[in-house]
Amino acid sequence: MTSADCVLCGVVTGALPASVVWHDDVVVVCMDHEPVTRGHMLVVPRVHTAGLGDTPSTTLARMAVVAQRMAGALRSSGLRCEGTTLYLADGAAAFQEVFHVHLHVFARYRDDGFTLNARWVVQPRDELDATAGLLRTALGGYRSLPE
Amino acid sequence: MTSADCVLCGVVTGALPASVVWHDDVVVVCMDHEPVTRGHMLVVPRVHTAGLGDTPSTTLARMAVVAQRMAGALRSSGLRCEGTTLYLADGAAAFQEVFHVHLHVFARYRDDGFTLNARWVVQPRDELDATAGLLRTALGGYRSLPE
Repeated sequence: MTSADCVLCGVVTGALPASVVWHDDVVVVCMDHEPVTRGHMLVVPRVHTAGLGDTPSTTLARMAVVAQRMAGALRSSGLRCEGTTLYLADGAAAFQEVFHVHLHVFARYRDDGFTLNARWVVQPRDELDATAGLLRTALGGYRSLPE
Repeated sequence: MTSADCVLCGVVTGALPASVVWHDDVVVVCMDHEPVTRGHMLVVPRVHTAGLGDTPSTTLARMAVVAQRMAGALRSSGLRCEGTTLYLADGAAAFQEVFHVHLHVFARYRDDGFTLNARWVVQPRDELDATAGLLRTALGGYRSLPE
């Protein structure tokens, strides 16, 4: 259920100090101690899983719904909030630093210092179609419904 | 259900060209035409809502679960993928450009050109506790379970 050397398991169990905003049977929401902007929260499942691949889909669904509610709280809290960002990093290459899956929720506002950069280049349709084909093959089908 | 001048409604209805990876009764997944990295997808609800605030939580839950599945497809597709990112921008201040809610799923790998910057500063516990208090007040309670 928990991992002895995991800081987010420590938050979930109460072994480590945390500023908790919300908890239910599936997740705990606490403040990020190094926030992008004031009000930055982490939605953390109670059961330890490292990333997206080993997290039950029901847990991920709850994380998303709680994150949505936290975004609503940010907007009505009086904290500066003109928009919100949800962000999940899965794997070291994606900048994941704590290997207990977590979803970031943070407030955004004009000149908040947050930037996001990439090598954005519009791709031709035939290349996009080819990539979509690879992904459909990886999914093992097309037009399948999730369970 | 759909908005006449919305590009993502055009994708959902098929009125606009798109490279579709997945569709079910709630969402359509298509390639982002200006990808962060090859394989960058958008999980788009069929019903038009602008952002987090007006999207049903059941829709958001489905978006998250489908995004998780798409991240799995990226990892097994043969496309370069050492990690994955989920990202949702809610509001212009959060860099939302198309006002039909959508969740980005993209592959990450070493030196992929994606960077994320902010004014990260570790905050003292009393300030984090005060912020958590404001958010709990905004939620109208503490230890409440979501419906």
